[in-house]
Amino acid sequence: MSDVGVWLVGARGNIATTAMVGAKAIARGETDTTGMVSARRPVSRLDMPDVSDLAFGGHDIRTGSVPEDARRLAEENGMPHPSTVEAVADDLADVDDHVHVGTALNCGESVEALSNAELLEEDRTVAEIVERIRDDVDSFRRAEGLDRVVMVNVASSEPPVENPDDYATREAFESAVEGDDRDLPASSLYAYVALSEGHPYANFTPSAGSSLGGLRQLAREEGVPHMGNDGKTGESLVKAALGPMFAGRNLRVMSWEGHNILGNTDGQVLEDERNKAGKIESKGDILDGILDDDFHNRVRIDYTPSLDDWKTAWDYIHFEGFLDTEMKMQFTWEGSDSALAAPLALDLVRLLSNADERGESGLQTHLASFFKAPLDVDEHDLARQFTWLYDYVDRNAGEETPDGVTAETPTDD
Amino acid sequence: MSDVGVWLVGARGNIATTAMVGAKAIARGETDTTGMVSARRPVSRLDMPDVSDLAFGGHDIRTGSVPEDARRLAEENGMPHPSTVEAVADDLADVDDHVHVGTALNCGESVEALSNAELLEEDRTVAEIVERIRDDVDSFRRAEGLDRVVMVNVASSEPPVENPDDYATREAFESAVEGDDRDLPASSLYAYVALSEGHPYANFTPSAGSSLGGLRQLAREEGVPHMGNDGKTGESLVKAALGPMFAGRNLRVMSWEGHNILGNTDGQVLEDERNKAGKIESKGDILDGILDDDFHNRVRIDYTPSLDDWKTAWDYIHFEGFLDTEMKMQFTWEGSDSALAAPLALDLVRLLSNADERGESGLQTHLASFFKAPLDVDEHDLARQFTWLYDYVDRNAGEETPDGVTAETPTDD
Amino acid sequence: MSDVGVWLVGARGNIATTAMVGAKAIARGETDTTGMVSARRPVSRLDMPDVSDLAFGGHDIRTGSVPEDARRLAEENGMPHPSTVEAVADDLADVDDHVHVGTALNCGESVEALSNAELLEEDRTVAEIVERIRDDVDSFRRAEGLDRVVMVNVASSEPPVENPDDYATREAFESAVEGDDRDLPASSLYAYVALSEGHPYANFTPSAGSSLGGLRQLAREEGVPHMGNDGKTGESLVKAALGPMFAGRNLRVMSWEGHNILGNTDGQVLEDERNKAGKIESKGDILDGILDDDFHNRVRIDYTPSLDDWKTAWDYIHFEGFLDTEMKMQFTWEGSDSALAAPLALDLVRLLSNADERGESGLQTHLASFFKAPLDVDEHDLARQFTWLYDYVDRNAGEETPDGVTAETPTDD
Amino acid sequence: MSDVGVWLVGARGNIATTAMVGAKAIARGETDTTGMVSARRPVSRLDMPDVSDLAFGGHDIRTGSVPEDARRLAEENGMPHPSTVEAVADDLADVDDHVHVGTALNCGESVEALSNAELLEEDRTVAEIVERIRDDVDSFRRAEGLDRVVMVNVASSEPPVENPDDYATREAFESAVEGDDRDLPASSLYAYVALSEGHPYANFTPSAGSSLGGLRQLAREEGVPHMGNDGKTGESLVKAALGPMFAGRNLRVMSWEGHNILGNTDGQVLEDERNKAGKIESKGDILDGILDDDFHNRVRIDYTPSLDDWKTAWDYIHFEGFLDTEMKMQFTWEGSDSALAAPLALDLVRLLSNADERGESGLQTHLASFFKAPLDVDEHDLARQFTWLYDYVDRNAGEETPDGVTAETPTDD
Ligand SMILES: NC(=O)c1ccc[n+]([C@@H]2O[C@H](COP(=O)([O-])OP(=O)(O)OC[C@H]3O[C@@H](n4cnc5c(N)ncnc54)[C@H](O)[C@@H]3O)[C@@H](O)[C@H]2O)c1
Ligand SMILES: NC(=O)c1ccc[n+]([C@@H]2O[C@H](COP(=O)([O-])OP(=O)(O)OC[C@H]3O[C@@H](n4cnc5c(N)ncnc54)[C@H](O)[C@@H]3O)[C@@H](O)[C@H]2O)c1
Ligand SMILES: NC(=O)c1ccc[n+]([C@@H]2O[C@H](COP(=O)([O-])OP(=O)(O)OC[C@H]3O[C@@H](n4cnc5c(N)ncnc54)[C@H](O)[C@@H]3O)[C@@H](O)[C@H]2O)c1
Ligand SMILES: NC(=O)c1ccc[n+]([C@@H]2O[C@H](COP(=O)([O-])OP(=O)(O)OC[C@H]3O[C@@H](n4cnc5c(N)ncnc54)[C@H](O)[C@@H]3O)[C@@H](O)[C@H]2O)c1
Ligand code: NA
Ligand code: NA
Repeated sequence: MSDVGVWLVGARGNIATTAMVGAKAIARGETDTTGMVSARRPVSRLDMPDVSDLAFGGHDIRTGSVPEDARRLAEENGMPHPSTVEAVADDLADVDDHVHVGTALNCGESVEALSNAELLEEDRTVAEIVERIRDDVDSFRRAEGLDRVVMVNVASSEPPVENPDDYATREAFESAVEGDDRDLPASSLYAYVALSEGHPYANFTPSAGSSLGGLRQLAREEGVPHMGNDGKTGESLVKAALGPMFAGRNLRVMSWEGHNILGNTDGQVLEDERNKAGKIESKGDILDGILDDDFHNRVRIDYTPSLDDWKTAWDYIHFEGFLDTEMKMQFTWEGSDSALAAPLALDLVRLLSNADERGESGLQTHLASFFKAPLDVDEHDLARQFTWLYDYVDRNAGEETPDGVTAETPTDD
Repeated sequence: MSDVGVWLVGARGNIATTAMVGAKAIARGETDTTGMVSARRPVSRLDMPDVSDLAFGGHDIRTGSVPEDARRLAEENGMPHPSTVEAVADDLADVDDHVHVGTALNCGESVEALSNAELLEEDRTVAEIVERIRDDVDSFRRAEGLDRVVMVNVASSEPPVENPDDYATREAFESAVEGDDRDLPASSLYAYVALSEGHPYANFTPSAGSSLGGLRQLAREEGVPHMGNDGKTGESLVKAALGPMFAGRNLRVMSWEGHNILGNTDGQVLEDERNKAGKIESKGDILDGILDDDFHNRVRIDYTPSLDDWKTAWDYIHFEGFLDTEMKMQFTWEGSDSALAAPLALDLVRLLSNADERGESGLQTHLASFFKAPLDVDEHDLARQFTWLYDYVDRNAGEETPDGVTAETPTDD
Repeated sequence: MSDVGVWLVGARGNIATTAMVGAKAIARGETDTTGMVSARRPVSRLDMPDVSDLAFGGHDIRTGSVPEDARRLAEENGMPHPSTVEAVADDLADVDDHVHVGTALNCGESVEALSNAELLEEDRTVAEIVERIRDDVDSFRRAEGLDRVVMVNVASSEPPVENPDDYATREAFESAVEGDDRDLPASSLYAYVALSEGHPYANFTPSAGSSLGGLRQLAREEGVPHMGNDGKTGESLVKAALGPMFAGRNLRVMSWEGHNILGNTDGQVLEDERNKAGKIESKGDILDGILDDDFHNRVRIDYTPSLDDWKTAWDYIHFEGFLDTEMKMQFTWEGSDSALAAPLALDLVRLLSNADERGESGLQTHLASFFKAPLDVDEHDLARQFTWLYDYVDRNAGEETPDGVTAETPTDD
Repeated sequence: MSDVGVWLVGARGNIATTAMVGAKAIARGETDTTGMVSARRPVSRLDMPDVSDLAFGGHDIRTGSVPEDARRLAEENGMPHPSTVEAVADDLADVDDHVHVGTALNCGESVEALSNAELLEEDRTVAEIVERIRDDVDSFRRAEGLDRVVMVNVASSEPPVENPDDYATREAFESAVEGDDRDLPASSLYAYVALSEGHPYANFTPSAGSSLGGLRQLAREEGVPHMGNDGKTGESLVKAALGPMFAGRNLRVMSWEGHNILGNTDGQVLEDERNKAGKIESKGDILDGILDDDFHNRVRIDYTPSLDDWKTAWDYIHFEGFLDTEMKMQFTWEGSDSALAAPLALDLVRLLSNADERGESGLQTHLASFFKAPLDVDEHDLARQFTWLYDYVDRNAGEETPDGVTAETPTDD
């Protein structure tokens, strides 16, 4: 595999920091690849860049120092272990050269409030912002001598775009950029740079990113693989695994209440109802896509500062079975959001690198299992999404005997 | 479809009673088929007997009256609704003619203690017991003018058979019957009658039933479809749905504690460590078959009288993710065991009827999703087991356009 | 004890209906007094009217039939048992003569939407409404030949009163009534009738009721005992029991998240943010009064129709102990709100009867344990509130040897 | 206050180590006194030794190094913070001089298996063991120039003593020591030394300790204050807080299931059914002492290695309310056992020091709230036990205005 770089939009955030600490810690033998889908059979059969070899750079709207970001994370969340952070602190310091201040255009007030820097939009047209982003990415590629850069959006969630249809074609999108249309969302400007430069792109957030029609067209025309939206890491992952059980057994879910509490910056931004809107929608849609009937489906996300990066979800499922019998299932999920998300961000980089190498183009729907609102995908059954991924691996993993799903049921003789 | 009868071993128990109340209540329009897998697409595409048309008979070791059994169940568990029981009380009374006292051979003391009747083994050889069971089933078939009888074992769990290898061939089994081998378990005597008469058989319990080598051979040679063991209804169902999520995401389960409390007769019998043994084993094996690594896997089943038929499970899952981060998931499941199990018993009758009609023979491994310890099956991933079933339906459901699993991932154009 | 009548404001609601079914079922030996504080030592030592002897009447804003209200409750919630309702249906039918349409003045739109009747305020001045309420209560008293009537407010929660200080004195309140001040809340009009007629009064809701300064003065001047606000039945009861444990052990609560879901009419009314306001406040204040430090204290109440009268609360307590160690406690509470509340309403009637008989006057703060926001009480520790009640009983229960709290610690000899 | 030393039996265990780290960390300003009952009003009003001034020594059956014990604890449990351990490592090293190998007489095989040292009993009579323990304690007292030593038993739980009546008097106990009665339990030998030397004693374990009749008599005759048994820290604490809520509201508990999982050495020792026996008993008795009726009361303790020092309890409470309505409460408690226990061990030292200074003698029943099975105490209501403690403080805290319980209910004027 050729040399691959990772461009993190939101590079000083929790997911980005955890991904970098993790990759460096794996490289130094301080930890293993637990939590990475691409490190386990069958996905590991694909020819992908080593996680140890990845180079990192990115944009954020806050200035700072990657080692300090990591220390703060360790201190506040007990994750990663402080000793792990120290073991890779020098490696992290090297990344700082490639972390630049970006744009927060249309990210909303609560995101802007996070920034301690002069943002690109303060004295630039949209076209100039795009140019600057392009330069930052390109100088990283050249400085590190990379064959390929994969951009991953792990920045704060933006409010939904109001008129996505205004950007339905490549032409419309590019005219908007040129015409200094200041309604364009930051996430799509970053995505535009990636796709127009031929860099694979993954959107781990519910923000618009590459989902606008014009950017999809661009990706197809330029032959660039991309996928989104919104990483599926905790409560929503469990929903996608459990929902099909109720459906498959013809148990009628009457109410599914999901109540999430979390305390990190992400949670703080989601306090803002506008930024929360997209998130609530992608979380709710999962079950609607799995369960047959109408049911009461509520998702709450609340900010609870003492939890820091630990997200706790309580789900209460009220369902009806045979003879109108009412029954209940409840679960609580207590996870470190960043520890769950970061390895998936690295998986996406590795999988998109492989896809790009093999000339794949456009939406990578076989990556649906990674996302809460996978673009162009209606299937929300986690197991079926896993099967898509495993089948894709079987088709693309070279000579080896396929494994993954056992297609045939056993016979009795 | 031809006329089908259901022979319930354990006919006065909770599952049997619930199944009969349910079938009659559906026939009278008092309830719907919620909870029945065979009533929902895609399985409903198969040509199966109507649940409203099923006739019922069976063995138990307790005498009594089916309507009274149903009233007691309603009273104690709040399931089924008392008004539903009254609406079908006359239908249930008709069943009593075909419920006979059977055998409790090697069912253990706690099962024998349930009996208020003179059991067949008290003054009969094993061969005579078998003959009597055969006569009971046959007179039901003739009296009701049935084309086909499906036997379902929903009797109390027996202790594990000590020397299953003694019955590894049809010849060995049949010699044991003839030679009055009083180590043979009751469940296998019932199964022997079913299979040797050409009646499909399902074993909803962890007891030996048709799993002995000699009976499997018999089923193949006589061309009879059968399947078991141990219905998968509550906590174990959830394990089979959730386990693959942890595996697929490469999250390392360190401990999975399952603690079940229940209060019905089943729970009382399982108080006996010997009868509990088989149950604990089939519950534990599910996860071992799904998760890659060694982990701490404990299942407890405790008897809590006040719960009656309501089984509550608390599961605590301690797992490790990226950067050695420890996380936790907990769930509680509060279900009416009988309301969960009874529709599956009816599903098995319908599916085995269809299989028999189409000439299927031997183990029906595509029914794995119904069982905790599906015979000859190593795959415990619920979604894959569902896929086997749906694929089987697609192959056997006639002209109609197949549905079920979407084989292809969406494309982006 | 003399003959006592109960006047229920909200007489067709769940609590009222449950209280009446319960009292009648106890009278007929169909159930026992489980759930009634006054039926258990030490409180039972007081000389109180028998629950079997209570007569019932009341106001509602909906017309209907008490037996039908009870049947609907049984059908929807599985509580009370249908057979119990039938056993007392005739007794309940007798009550209907004394249930009249009242007023919904300032109860908000969501309450008005419940009404199917012509409300008193439609063509009356406030003074005329009061007169009509007075007549209704009085004709009940006379028809049933009662010595005493106790009014209990179990009507829907009203929005908070905007200017409570406008009614700070008896004179101000009475002038407002006379001057047709249409900002007066319905609950206080009912309370005014009770207190001015010398009838003890309890407010089981967060509505204003007797808490306005003018009504408190009236109660003192007329020598009438009364108490409120807002019955403490479920999650808030648990908070009042658990909070002192954390405080007593010097464990620092950082966050206490309480999430309530319920599906009855009460839940539906509380969907309205204005009506919910008072409820959230009284629930939240309990912990603030118990725990030393500032902490994150959130209460959510959500409407989940499928739950009917069953309220489920999930509470998540994040606390810190020795050496800055973070720990967690979670609980779920699944209770029938009406089954929890109704016996307390009967307890309050019995306790206020006894108080009235003995000439008590004004706020009955020793009843604090019954209320989420006990008037004039800062102490929210449930155990201390229980101690107040038990001490009060000891002082007022006659000759018998006191029991209740053991004042002295054991000695070692 | 005079100079006070703490003698920890089980000095290398988790509680002892945590107590020492905590005291030293408080002394160095690295943490605060959260979790200590004696650091909070009203208990803090008593004149007690500063936790920063306490000196430490003790016995264990394992050799090692206190700083290393602390590092291992930090590493495995994430508690205490590694940086805190390093900040006090030198202080801890000083303690090692006073930690000696003791005796494991009648502690059972699983405890003996922990030992890596030559135990005192290997070549000594019981009288000689006692003499050696006495010398160890005394040389600590002299070396540190202490006015007072308080012994706290935080060693592994022993199996119950088979014939406690054999040691019912001081004379019987002392004859047994002299007569080399090798049935005497280790815990009572340590307690004997403490009490006969005039040192206050607290037993944080369910082992016999000072509870034998002969030792109680000794304590009274020698004027030494002591108390036990078995620290009340987690699930049992919650039971003692919640049980009275059900009782006070006349809610009938039908079943209370408690299921504990933990992974530390304590959990490992409790795997041994004999050592577990006493623990299960004291945990179960709490509720029996609080709830009126007979109910199903089960406590399970299981060893789950991955949890280390984190104990998780799941409790399921099935109760009945008004009109025979069945309801449920569940809770989970996730605590660091050592972080919960250690501050209480320090509290007991401080409280017993004060008691000793003021000439108290014999059982200190006002300390009941600290123990699961408080000696000579039948009252298990946590709030009442707290009240005993607060009343005791009020009586003994000197001139200051008493606070704590508000004795009088508020009045309304
Ligand atoms: N952690 C999870 O499990 C998970 C799951 C799904 C989606 N997500 C999404 O991933 C994103 C990142 O999550 P996180 O926990 O790391 O959040 P975070 O708040 O820790 O990090 C976000 C970072 O993005 C930066 N940022 C904000 N706007 C930016 C912009 N326009 N350009 C460049 N940088 C910008 C912020 O300064 C911050 O450093 C969020 O949108 C979150 O909703 C997270
Ligand atoms: N309910 C579930 O969810 C579930 C799931 C998996 C397996 N199972 C198994 O299904 C079986 C039935 O469960 P249930 O709840 O109905 O139990 P149950 O105790 O209510 O009924 C069992 C009935 O079998 C009868 N019986 C016992 N031994 C017999 C024998 N040798 N011959 C004939 N009758 C006999 C008993 O008298 C009783 O009437 C049990 O073995 C149980 O372990 C149940
Ligand atoms: N159930 C509990 O556990 C609990 C606890 C604390 C407080 N409460 C409060 O008790 C009250 C009653 O609860 P519920 O569950 O019986 O509610 P409900 O909705 O079943 O009953 C309320 C009844 O009051 C009637 N009503 C509304 N406004 C009225 C008015 N102005 N005059 C006369 N009648 C009026 C309604 O028509 C309805 O019949 C609510 O305010 C609730 O918030 C209930
Ligand atoms: N942690 C809690 O919350 C809690 C609550 C109540 C009671 N307890 C009891 O406190 C005790 C200590 O708990 P822990 O978690 O510290 O256990 P631990 O296993 O970490 O420590 C016990 C120590 O005692 C030593 N020991 C064993 N027998 C001894 C003997 N005869 N003489 C001297 N030392 C001996 C062991 O070597 C070990 O170092 C246990 O008995 C436990 O049951 C603990
Ligand atoms: Na395995
Ligand atoms: Na406070």
